Amino acid sequence: MDFKIIDQIILNALHEDMPEGDITTDNLIPDNHKSKARFVAKEDGVLSGLDVCRRVFELVGGSFNLTFNYKNGDKIKKGDVIGLIDGDTKTLLKGERVALNLLQRMCGIATTTSKFTKELVGDCKILDTRKTTPNLRYIEKMAVVDGGGTNHRYSLSDMAMIKDNHIVAAGSITKAVSILKSKITKKVEVEVETREEFLEAEATEADIIMLDNMSNEDMLWCVKNNDKLKHKLEASGNMTVERIKEVSSLGVDFISVGALTHSPRALDISLKFYDLK
Amino acid sequence: MDFKIIDQIILNALHEDMPEGDITTDNLIPDNHKSKARFVAKEDGVLSGLDVCRRVFELVGGSFNLTFNYKNGDKIKKGDVIGLIDGDTKTLLKGERVALNLLQRMCGIATTTSKFTKELVGDCKILDTRKTTPNLRYIEKMAVVDGGGTNHRYSLSDMAMIKDNHIVAAGSITKAVSILKSKITKKVEVEVETREEFLEAEATEADIIMLDNMSNEDMLWCVKNNDKLKHKLEASGNMTVERIKEVSSLGVDFISVGALTHSPRALDISLKFYDLK
Amino acid sequence: MDFKIIDQIILNALHEDMPEGDITTDNLIPDNHKSKARFVAKEDGVLSGLDVCRRVFELVGGSFNLTFNYKNGDKIKKGDVIGLIDGDTKTLLKGERVALNLLQRMCGIATTTSKFTKELVGDCKILDTRKTTPNLRYIEKMAVVDGGGTNHRYSLSDMAMIKDNHIVAAGSITKAVSILKSKITKKVEVEVETREEFLEAEATEADIIMLDNMSNEDMLWCVKNNDKLKHKLEASGNMTVERIKEVSSLGVDFISVGALTHSPRALDISLKFYDLK
Amino acid sequence: MDFKIIDQIILNALHEDMPEGDITTDNLIPDNHKSKARFVAKEDGVLSGLDVCRRVFELVGGSFNLTFNYKNGDKIKKGDVIGLIDGDTKTLLKGERVALNLLQRMCGIATTTSKFTKELVGDCKILDTRKTTPNLRYIEKMAVVDGGGTNHRYSLSDMAMIKDNHIVAAGSITKAVSILKSKITKKVEVEVETREEFLEAEATEADIIMLDNMSNEDMLWCVKNNDKLKHKLEASGNMTVERIKEVSSLGVDFISVGALTHSPRALDISLKFYDLK
Amino acid sequence: MDFKIIDQIILNALHEDMPEGDITTDNLIPDNHKSKARFVAKEDGVLSGLDVCRRVFELVGGSFNLTFNYKNGDKIKKGDVIGLIDGDTKTLLKGERVALNLLQRMCGIATTTSKFTKELVGDCKILDTRKTTPNLRYIEKMAVVDGGGTNHRYSLSDMAMIKDNHIVAAGSITKAVSILKSKITKKVEVEVETREEFLEAEATEADIIMLDNMSNEDMLWCVKNNDKLKHKLEASGNMTVERIKEVSSLGVDFISVGALTHSPRALDISLKFYDLK
Amino acid sequence: MDFKIIDQIILNALHEDMPEGDITTDNLIPDNHKSKARFVAKEDGVLSGLDVCRRVFELVGGSFNLTFNYKNGDKIKKGDVIGLIDGDTKTLLKGERVALNLLQRMCGIATTTSKFTKELVGDCKILDTRKTTPNLRYIEKMAVVDGGGTNHRYSLSDMAMIKDNHIVAAGSITKAVSILKSKITKKVEVEVETREEFLEAEATEADIIMLDNMSNEDMLWCVKNNDKLKHKLEASGNMTVERIKEVSSLGVDFISVGALTHSPRALDISLKFYDLK
Repeated sequence: MDFKIIDQIILNALHEDMPEGDITTDNLIPDNHKSKARFVAKEDGVLSGLDVCRRVFELVGGSFNLTFNYKNGDKIKKGDVIGLIDGDTKTLLKGERVALNLLQRMCGIATTTSKFTKELVGDCKILDTRKTTPNLRYIEKMAVVDGGGTNHRYSLSDMAMIKDNHIVAAGSITKAVSILKSKITKKVEVEVETREEFLEAEATEADIIMLDNMSNEDMLWCVKNNDKLKHKLEASGNMTVERIKEVSSLGVDFISVGALTHSPRALDISLKFYDLK
Repeated sequence: MDFKIIDQIILNALHEDMPEGDITTDNLIPDNHKSKARFVAKEDGVLSGLDVCRRVFELVGGSFNLTFNYKNGDKIKKGDVIGLIDGDTKTLLKGERVALNLLQRMCGIATTTSKFTKELVGDCKILDTRKTTPNLRYIEKMAVVDGGGTNHRYSLSDMAMIKDNHIVAAGSITKAVSILKSKITKKVEVEVETREEFLEAEATEADIIMLDNMSNEDMLWCVKNNDKLKHKLEASGNMTVERIKEVSSLGVDFISVGALTHSPRALDISLKFYDLK
Repeated sequence: MDFKIIDQIILNALHEDMPEGDITTDNLIPDNHKSKARFVAKEDGVLSGLDVCRRVFELVGGSFNLTFNYKNGDKIKKGDVIGLIDGDTKTLLKGERVALNLLQRMCGIATTTSKFTKELVGDCKILDTRKTTPNLRYIEKMAVVDGGGTNHRYSLSDMAMIKDNHIVAAGSITKAVSILKSKITKKVEVEVETREEFLEAEATEADIIMLDNMSNEDMLWCVKNNDKLKHKLEASGNMTVERIKEVSSLGVDFISVGALTHSPRALDISLKFYDLK
Repeated sequence: MDFKIIDQIILNALHEDMPEGDITTDNLIPDNHKSKARFVAKEDGVLSGLDVCRRVFELVGGSFNLTFNYKNGDKIKKGDVIGLIDGDTKTLLKGERVALNLLQRMCGIATTTSKFTKELVGDCKILDTRKTTPNLRYIEKMAVVDGGGTNHRYSLSDMAMIKDNHIVAAGSITKAVSILKSKITKKVEVEVETREEFLEAEATEADIIMLDNMSNEDMLWCVKNNDKLKHKLEASGNMTVERIKEVSSLGVDFISVGALTHSPRALDISLKFYDLK
Repeated sequence: MDFKIIDQIILNALHEDMPEGDITTDNLIPDNHKSKARFVAKEDGVLSGLDVCRRVFELVGGSFNLTFNYKNGDKIKKGDVIGLIDGDTKTLLKGERVALNLLQRMCGIATTTSKFTKELVGDCKILDTRKTTPNLRYIEKMAVVDGGGTNHRYSLSDMAMIKDNHIVAAGSITKAVSILKSKITKKVEVEVETREEFLEAEATEADIIMLDNMSNEDMLWCVKNNDKLKHKLEASGNMTVERIKEVSSLGVDFISVGALTHSPRALDISLKFYDLK
Repeated sequence: MDFKIIDQIILNALHEDMPEGDITTDNLIPDNHKSKARFVAKEDGVLSGLDVCRRVFELVGGSFNLTFNYKNGDKIKKGDVIGLIDGDTKTLLKGERVALNLLQRMCGIATTTSKFTKELVGDCKILDTRKTTPNLRYIEKMAVVDGGGTNHRYSLSDMAMIKDNHIVAAGSITKAVSILKSKITKKVEVEVETREEFLEAEATEADIIMLDNMSNEDMLWCVKNNDKLKHKLEASGNMTVERIKEVSSLGVDFISVGALTHSPRALDISLKFYDLK
């Protein structure tokens, strides 16, 4: 976990939520006023983002203690007290919304991911995609790992992915792979939709072949015609929870699932103040 | 719509997706290569973010034409062609994911909001909350308006909201309102949970009183005991689509709904390339 | 007071004053060299910005102690020792000019504001305007409060202000107010110059009506024809210190004064080093 | 004039004034609505900042024409129409306040400076100081030149200025000058308060000697004992307009005046909309 | 090539070279003054950075024409006129130094790289390293490609590289590779120094094995004991031009050379103004 | 030394090297894992940048101790242990490359500079130029001083340098100097190539005259015809180490050498981990 990236996300979020300060709290709460509160789960799920949550309050500034009763990746039940925070009331009130907004989203992604990963058969892994929330990719990919998933490429910069347009422009799959291999050492993946395209890709030095929207039958055929030492196979396209068991049993190495991050339902968590005085 | 704010969101998102360029496209697609593609709705919904989508491609740079067949706020059906884009292949490929990630989220929020607003009875309005995606609040609030909703306060800076901790620290609701009114001219809202608290708040100069997690019966009582010229009333807490008709008929001015933005399910929209050569 | 905003102002100012360091001090003063100095008032005034002043030295870095003998809002006389600072000579010399530039301006604004507020009769309040120094609005509005004034809207984003062009474009005052009230919950103010315009505005849901450049007689007429529960009244236009007593006695709620911030005469304060060795 | 520096000032100012857009204008004015307005002087003065003013509207964006009837440095009279602007109403309304805030301040400084420079006798020049508004130094120094003044050092980085603390730490004026001359080629100035200190400084390679708070008699003595080829002399300390004629006639090269910028009274200029429809 | 990254480098460099403008040119050259100049090679080399050079002048602003007689990757001889620029004198003078500083460095790297690549035997490729100039990595890696080299990993983020400390912490090479493969799909490289370590790495799923500071004899042994379908081999450590022919003939896939970028000797290129008037 | 400038350089470099963290270290090294390492010189040289090196690890974060056995400016021999660092393995691994990249460059520049300065005769000084690495000028100029050199102007902003184009545009050397002296107090340097130009420049108030690409004979003539009290003389153009002794003996005040920084060969320094466990 890299705090420089996370700090930027949090500082932007705090600025968004307080462009000119918290006019209620700044005008009503004395600097030395103290409060206590509990983070309580209001539904079952998987935890993620506890350190991000803590970092929000650190970046708000002021004095506080925050103790979590669980760690990232843990399963929690409705009603569980995730953590306790006590300290400067100003710090707690100013950080509350941003902390919850981030924590709830990360837990939501981890929870969703865990539903997919528990269906896996064999060595197959669940991969995330680039269908993440703009500006939050780093923390959303952390949440995928907390849910038992594996991170696929981060961006257009760190792995090549050859699609239709690239193939047409380069002339063929073979040429496209060859050009990329001469300029970079990063992985090269090729997206194929038919058995014919698969055979072309299989003959190249591509590191991963993505089987895009193929039937289970076709995917099984590809697995059998693939040199496992040369290419990893990634199943992609409408991969619902219901399909994971069967697809993973075909022998593909990866199943990528956009739904892990493109519609992250927030896990319901509240910060309950108590013992007010 | 303020492009300075939107540009920052988009530029951050493009940087996130291309910290060192698009290694596939930069190495395989000639600068003068052209492509065509259609934005196609894969489910019913309400449009939002068309200008944000266009801006993504402008900020990627290069030459392109983008024509939308609809405008923000329009309802679309599964299969509708939302727009056509043709131009530099590099521009289209580099902008595709960020544009879709933003467009799908905004349409998702507008679609969700419209489900709430069509249930409204009388002059009551649906308000959003601060439970937005960190760093995306500005465009999420635009999407709420496209879905027929009304924007509540933007941040902790532009409206005061007096909660339990503030009341305890200030001594009473009355004192808290009075202090704020002496320092700022912005609106002051008070959150109340009981009839007793309501009566205290009603006696102050508060601009809005939030009825938090109250029963319909209690809310009706508050409406009847409120001086409409002095205070607007906002119903809040677990406001599902099913409750909107009844709650709005009680006479409250606003119903605020966190679910508009805290779990935005993306509307399924794809960018289909065609006529490849 | 929000340090994130203030820190940005100070860091920009320090960079402006030391783009490549302090070539005199960096080359001549040893890291462990210590100095002592006093902040001395060279004229009477009202204090503001003491914490901003302290923050400058903190952001310069190094070790120092700074004790103020007064607090923001206090009145001081010529010759008063406002505070004592001792510590690293490098810190003191590098921070001196920026600290004084900020402190003197804030004290100047607080002092000017206090001249207006002491003339007030009744519940009327003195408001600031958007005629602030670009990039320094946040701290200038703090200084207004230290001088006994009240902050009006911070920016074009946090309160609507309907002027001539808006009315012409919307069709009428009534329509303009109505459109805004359907989209936002923030306050809406209408600017009027005649009794006729006032009556139009009075019939709407506008929160504040600004009486712009009206005679005292007209303003009194407006006060009498206003429903106090619906609209606050703001007197505006050439509001000199001499007019405050009379205008405030008319019954308006606010008097806004651009001169508080558009020409802030710095209060003369010096940092006197002593006991050099 | 360097637009990169000015753009940063303006963009910060626009963000400060529209963190979430102009809610009145964005909601009421159609994109294609046009307006016309005149910049009118409401008092006599010297112009400065016309290109800064124009740049504000360019950075707001949209379409407009702006014609100035004068150029920077020109004298204007009360009632003069400084310029005409017509174009998108949104552009004019969003840029108005920031443009005026900057223009009025720069004209104010140029006007003040011209009052000092017209008193000068001989080759003596009026210098500005570092007592500028934090974050606005670049444009304030432009305004000083428009008023006939000369820019002194910009910051702690571009000229060395040896003061008491530096002398004590280095051991003597001679040593301090010598150390600096061995490390940098930038100018070195020494601040002296007595005839004795002057003689020490005069014997070094210092480029400028500042006569700080000296009597006219002492300054004259310094002028006579100075080797003009080696050192320029700068008079400093409480240099009011009334003293300029006499001090400049003593033979000093420069008179530095903090009052040019530390309390810039804004020149009263208004933007009058006309022909509304 | 991604202009967003390059623009940031250039804008930082221009700010570094003109924090407060070009005081000579801004004060002496009229806006409409024109000049002409030639970029002339003063020694033999390989071109790189022509588009970066052009971008510098675009970001300075103003009007100019720049025609290059060569393209990136071309070999040039001493005396060759690389390009011609004519346009606003201000633009040319303000951009000159930054443009040359960047162009000369990039050409220097391309020239150095080409000396290595022309020695290659077989399919072996020359790789760059992370020993680049801080803040200039993106353009230095572009220059390596222009010199015929291949880009190795960009940063610590886009490929895993297992070194001694990682192995000790993870327990073994096998465990380290296994952990990484479960979390990311990016390439995993293992650094080995002995035949024993090589055999351990060869048994894992590592994508690349780096043979660090091995003798040619040991490297040959590794090549023979390597499953080419599973692992690429990279020779590293003191790879001088003289060794490239022999090492590349051993059958390794890559030779990485820190010297390409850690000590980039600038290629001597001058901008000669002519036809002054 | 100004940490604000250095921090920006280092933070940019760390971001460049870890845009999404260190995927090897973050996944394999426990937070509490400790390591020890030595900085070892692999060739003779002069030290510079020790505090920059330390600052890299501080900005990475975590816990560590770093002790240097030398200080900036010290001469070291091949094999010398420059310093010892022990602490969090994560901190050491993440900071290693950026720290070495900066340290090696700075030591390289100091070492090169010292080769020139030790040839100097009399009071003559070696100056650097603006031929620095873009974005690293501040630390490269620090390294020049550590090598015994003197810093010339930092940028186009802090000293005027009149070249051919300026003279043509202004009309003459005399006019150009005169205009600049009326607007700024910073130093003015004139570049001359012939005895005739020198005589023109000598008659002005220019602070420095640069003798550009002149023969030793011509430079000697200029020295003899120069009023030392009025103008410093700077020899420039192809100043190799071999020429320094003779040129400095001619009586010029400065010799400027672009080669100090335009092709900085890194000094070979390694960070050797030991006692791994």
